[in-house]
Amino acid sequence: MTDLENCMESLIKIFHCYADEDKDKTTLSKKELTKLIEKELPTFLKTQKNPKVVDEIKKDLDQNGDDKVDFQEFLSLVTGLSIACEKCFMLLEQKKGKKCC
Amino acid sequence: MTDLENCMESLIKIFHCYADEDKDKTTLSKKELTKLIEKELPTFLKTQKNPKVVDEIKKDLDQNGDDKVDFQEFLSLVTGLSIACEKCFMLLEQKKGKKCC
Repeated sequence: MTDLENCMESLIKIFHCYADEDKDKTTLSKKELTKLIEKELPTFLKTQKNPKVVDEIKKDLDQNGDDKVDFQEFLSLVTGLSIACEKCFMLLEQKKGKKCC
Repeated sequence: MTDLENCMESLIKIFHCYADEDKDKTTLSKKELTKLIEKELPTFLKTQKNPKVVDEIKKDLDQNGDDKVDFQEFLSLVTGLSIACEKCFMLLEQKKGKKCC
């Protein structure tokens, strides 16, 4: 598989690693989403000064307001963080040739 | 780094591996996007019966119509393909316990 194919497979596996913990394997419950964020995004959480950041992410992600986060909503989180990270990457590349992510 | 952090880093690296080929390092030109799709998504291309699929993807991705694909537009492709792939994964999991991706 190519790097991009591996990456898409990883996204599916990561989502289901947490979504499969309760009966509803198609979505992340609030508990599952909290665990995913804490386990998979420790670097991001360390940089956040707002202690309510996880609650705010959960609220933002649940676009259809059903208290569950499906795979598409999970990808919105990945997209948002990747865009922020890429901007940082570009800035540092321009300045020092270093990578931030 | 965690699996999800590695995945976000890979997405940035893959995009810039192709976007950095010409002077404009912030976007993929039509030529760079074609190369990315052909090199990174061979499995997807093999399954497509429509020979114009690459042209159609390029047209769909360029949401602001400037003939270039930025990182956010590239992530739309990844999101769309990942969602399709995850649906297939779920169907096969239900039927046979096998994975498609």
